[in-house]
Amino acid sequence: LLAIIALTGNSQKDSLTTRKIFNTALLSNQIYEDLGVLCKESPGRLCGSDNAAKAINLLSGMLKDAGADTVYLQECMVRKWDRGKIEKCLVSSKSGGTFETDICALGGSVSTPEKGITAQVIELKNFDDLAKAGKEKINGKIVFFNQPLNPEHYYTFNAYGEFAKLRVYGAKEASAYGAVAVIVRSMTLKTDNQPHTGIMRYKDAAVQIPGAAISTVDADRLSLSLKNDSALTVSLTLDCKELPEVPSYNVIAEIKGSEFPDEYIVAGGHTDAWDNGEGAHDDGAGCVQSINILRIFKQAEIKPRHTLRIIMFMDEEVDQRGAKKYAESVSQKKEKHILALESDRGGYTPHGFSMEISKELYEKVIQWKKHFLMYGVWFFEIGGSGVDVGPLAKLGIPCMGLVTDSQRYFDIQHAPSDTFDKVNKRELQLGSAAMATMIWFFDQYFAQ
Amino acid sequence: LLAIIALTGNSQKDSLTTRKIFNTALLSNQIYEDLGVLCKESPGRLCGSDNAAKAINLLSGMLKDAGADTVYLQECMVRKWDRGKIEKCLVSSKSGGTFETDICALGGSVSTPEKGITAQVIELKNFDDLAKAGKEKINGKIVFFNQPLNPEHYYTFNAYGEFAKLRVYGAKEASAYGAVAVIVRSMTLKTDNQPHTGIMRYKDAAVQIPGAAISTVDADRLSLSLKNDSALTVSLTLDCKELPEVPSYNVIAEIKGSEFPDEYIVAGGHTDAWDNGEGAHDDGAGCVQSINILRIFKQAEIKPRHTLRIIMFMDEEVDQRGAKKYAESVSQKKEKHILALESDRGGYTPHGFSMEISKELYEKVIQWKKHFLMYGVWFFEIGGSGVDVGPLAKLGIPCMGLVTDSQRYFDIQHAPSDTFDKVNKRELQLGSAAMATMIWFFDQYFAQ
Repeated sequence: LLAIIALTGNSQKDSLTTRKIFNTALLSNQIYEDLGVLCKESPGRLCGSDNAAKAINLLSGMLKDAGADTVYLQECMVRKWDRGKIEKCLVSSKSGGTFETDICALGGSVSTPEKGITAQVIELKNFDDLAKAGKEKINGKIVFFNQPLNPEHYYTFNAYGEFAKLRVYGAKEASAYGAVAVIVRSMTLKTDNQPHTGIMRYKDAAVQIPGAAISTVDADRLSLSLKNDSALTVSLTLDCKELPEVPSYNVIAEIKGSEFPDEYIVAGGHTDAWDNGEGAHDDGAGCVQSINILRIFKQAEIKPRHTLRIIMFMDEEVDQRGAKKYAESVSQKKEKHILALESDRGGYTPHGFSMEISKELYEKVIQWKKHFLMYGVWFFEIGGSGVDVGPLAKLGIPCMGLVTDSQRYFDIQHAPSDTFDKVNKRELQLGSAAMATMIWFFDQYFAQ
Repeated sequence: LLAIIALTGNSQKDSLTTRKIFNTALLSNQIYEDLGVLCKESPGRLCGSDNAAKAINLLSGMLKDAGADTVYLQECMVRKWDRGKIEKCLVSSKSGGTFETDICALGGSVSTPEKGITAQVIELKNFDDLAKAGKEKINGKIVFFNQPLNPEHYYTFNAYGEFAKLRVYGAKEASAYGAVAVIVRSMTLKTDNQPHTGIMRYKDAAVQIPGAAISTVDADRLSLSLKNDSALTVSLTLDCKELPEVPSYNVIAEIKGSEFPDEYIVAGGHTDAWDNGEGAHDDGAGCVQSINILRIFKQAEIKPRHTLRIIMFMDEEVDQRGAKKYAESVSQKKEKHILALESDRGGYTPHGFSMEISKELYEKVIQWKKHFLMYGVWFFEIGGSGVDVGPLAKLGIPCMGLVTDSQRYFDIQHAPSDTFDKVNKRELQLGSAAMATMIWFFDQYFAQ
């Protein structure tokens, strides 16, 4: 599967095409209108939900309108977790003072008993602290992981990556020490009053205890309260639950390749989004940017030589069933893929691409960088690609993730604030143009 | 004055210092708190206004708190234009339909008569259209310059620069053809309902006619109305006026250089802001970023070898009296300046520096780029520097302007939407760090 790329022979053509693609993207408002419709008509489209089903229909229509030859669905079973209606957290200190804080169940959490869990709280920073505190101090308590993200990271995904495990595995780890629930400080660099949700996993935990996120403002408040009264109690009530799995779908659209119809270039984002926001940046942006690639090719009158396949992956947030299903299908059908590119880092100004490709291929790709630079797209590095194309990378397919300005991403990730108005039209358009341009280069210069 | 820079001898030290500066900036919230205070306590601080005087006091205090050895004021006379209280625009068509649109006087405009100006409207794109239409068609009419900015420019300042003259000189040019007033489409790439103001200049115009800005949404509406009824009339009423000039001030703060106290490195932003918003990005951001350079140096325990001079320039928006006054003073005192750096392109993610420097110096500066790259600061180009350091560039002083992500800048420039909440803390911090780093390199490696 080693890719061999023909030398970039016509720098002027490359430059003109790049400009044509960016101009086309910047002149059309449809991508922004599509995002508005998706966010307002199917917000909170968590896999298995009614709004996810609605989004599948909406996105199918948008793909047709953007110029796809064919649009079809690929079935996959998905988990169906429901947040329920009750999310309460009451802090009571011995002095008699009580206050309520906003809280949200982490995705996949079990509920509390109907009357809630009332317990003392132990504040910890990380999993090492669990071992240090030991069963004696933790047993019967609610563990409060209060670890702020480190603002020193320029690339905020590195700050997130450092401590996201507290959210994902906090309940599993704390339950081994007898904790009755976990409350996790939201994974954001912003000081705000919004709890940021996200997946948690029990894996092989002997006991499944509830997990919830608390906003950074309320985490600071709770921490301060604990300094004044280490014996204060928290009453936590959640009525979320896991329902039986249901069928759902990837949406797949194609423009048939003129020369190599059986060779594929994939671009995509994920349809599903957490249930507490509109999923505008995560990942409505990636969906409409991918759809817009078809529109750009049509409007700029570029006929792809290879088949373009635009995929709206289902279930990135919970179990990646859509991504796994697509990779399985590729593997079974032995479909040749020359590139898979995803956008799932927010619809901000594009900075470049993180590439899961061979060094040989990288040496070719880097030659195209000069054409991207005039649009501020400067980051070309080997590294991870993305969650949805990840299974394709394991098959040896060259994979990439669009890298965007990360400064504002965790302000809104998995929070009610991830809304349409947070997305800037031009930033969104530029990201789509960067993707279309990378695809054009692969389509143009990939040779057998 | 040709600068000679010692070769960068210690790449490890350079890299560590860069990191230290960025970490220091990202860990301190004071810059953001300063901006909040400036925006909320002295919004709309147009030169000559009470809020400008208030801002001078606030900024002086912030400079002291940030660690300046000395803070002093430099007097300059400024124009005092007052918007007044009446800004009305009523569109009436022959079918009897009327509607009111928001409008705002352009800075420096004369008022209309008290009862307003009622006239037919001629819609034009540019100054060539004036000549084409001629006196016969224009005489007695209101000229409506309805030229959208071109979204194809990646760097939005280029889109702005292309047509800003319609706002600045539209009244002067149209009055020569007998126009009675001009209405100019707002200089923004965003579709919004906010009129964006900005300076206009009569220069040697024989007749001074009023000039006003209309939002892009209302410009489209007016244009559509004109298509239906080319004889519709607009009644425009403005009661703005020019008052006698008043004294105002640059605020100047210093940290004395340990080795070269009589050689200066300048950084700055401008205190004044248009009266219809909070002046958050334009240019509260540049002010607090410059102030924060002192704080970074103190907190990172970097003692400058040359004297750091942080300047809050007065009157960038109207007549640049502060910038001219400072340059005059430098020239008179023959003060040696090795760098003047300003931030006035919004407090967005820093992309680099536009440099008004010699090619010889550029060859040295470009060697430092590798240290900036890990913070996404990639743009190092010879070009314009900025309005406030511009007069220093004319004296042969190396000048630079911080270049930031421009995509959102004209969404808010000179509009009510230029408010504190539009500024992201981390983006603001990173810009300040980029400035401090560039200053450190000059301070470290500039040799006689």
